Amino acid sequence: MTSPLLEQLVEAFRVLPGVGQKSAQRMAYHVLERERAGGRRLADALAAAVEKIGHCARCRDFSEDEVCATCASAARDVHQLCVVETPADRLAIEQATGYRGLYYVLQGRLSPLDGIGPGELGLDRLGARLGEGEVSEMIIATNPTVEGEATAHYLGQLARQHGVRPSRLAHGVPLGGELEYVDRGTLSHAFGTRSEMT
Amino acid sequence: MTSPLLEQLVEAFRVLPGVGQKSAQRMAYHVLERERAGGRRLADALAAAVEKIGHCARCRDFSEDEVCATCASAARDVHQLCVVETPADRLAIEQATGYRGLYYVLQGRLSPLDGIGPGELGLDRLGARLGEGEVSEMIIATNPTVEGEATAHYLGQLARQHGVRPSRLAHGVPLGGELEYVDRGTLSHAFGTRSEMT
Ligand SMILES: [Zn+2]
Ligand SMILES: [Zn+2]
Repeated sequence: MTSPLLEQLVEAFRVLPGVGQKSAQRMAYHVLERERAGGRRLADALAAAVEKIGHCARCRDFSEDEVCATCASAARDVHQLCVVETPADRLAIEQATGYRGLYYVLQGRLSPLDGIGPGELGLDRLGARLGEGEVSEMIIATNPTVEGEATAHYLGQLARQHGVRPSRLAHGVPLGGELEYVDRGTLSHAFGTRSEMT
Repeated sequence: MTSPLLEQLVEAFRVLPGVGQKSAQRMAYHVLERERAGGRRLADALAAAVEKIGHCARCRDFSEDEVCATCASAARDVHQLCVVETPADRLAIEQATGYRGLYYVLQGRLSPLDGIGPGELGLDRLGARLGEGEVSEMIIATNPTVEGEATAHYLGQLARQHGVRPSRLAHGVPLGGELEYVDRGTLSHAFGTRSEMT
């Protein structure tokens, strides 16, 4: 390349997920050729985000405030608490469902081999919160992986210890999914938990 | 989302080519969860690039200096000038070939309907440069599109006007390409310009 600053920009773009050398070059050229104002906005937004966004003291999701807007909202149902692994999972549920309760973001899952235990996921704080008595149902929405299931099991016990009713998302054939392409475990589970047609 | 700054960051990422809402979210979460230092570097690199990178006065490629390192280099052959449409094309040639001459980047192609004429592509300046007498061969590497071909035709005439020999990249079957999948125009051209085996 003819410009050291351009080379630095290409290299810097590669920090983004799924962006290799070719995509990084295309991004850099695109910004310089057609989107300088947008590039400037992205630089400012990035700088502000990495500097000011921390975690909500209540739900652990990303927030630049001590307590995020959802946790601070008077319009949410404080009796329901949905526990997810990541902010992306929380966003997916918020966007796809009409859920109006609160969330708790683990920022991970139990993984003893990686040194991630209950402390790293803030489960002591979650337990204390359940002890406050406001939450009546804890919706456990960890991922259906081995570690996610182990985490769900732990969370279920934690809930019961505090007299909170744990619940889980339903597993089954995805809407619009074809049986032929559904994995065997899911299909077996869906078959075993079939319900009567009404 | 729980954070206005995070929403701004997602929106800002969408300025990048091929980045929709989902990818933008993934990028934002990735940076915040795992790459804050890299995000900071990207912000700085972007800000510096959009502010300081202009065009080389000699070849029109991107450069933060008045004249880019390639044009200023004593190691390049000043008798050959390769004309390309974009900085990306120039980079592809530089990376793939052993070419040691100089470049001229049009930053576009002739497109009368879009109001892009010889003036917009700096062809007056290119003509003046050919008139200096240093260049003996002009390698025309515009794209094999209708507009690229029209541009190549114009460039060929411009070269001859100044006593410069114009040349073009060879068209033909890509190395490793299977005849079955080569488009008909290319195959016909490759067949018609076949050469004797030696
Ligand atoms: Zn919160
Ligand atoms: Zn130059």
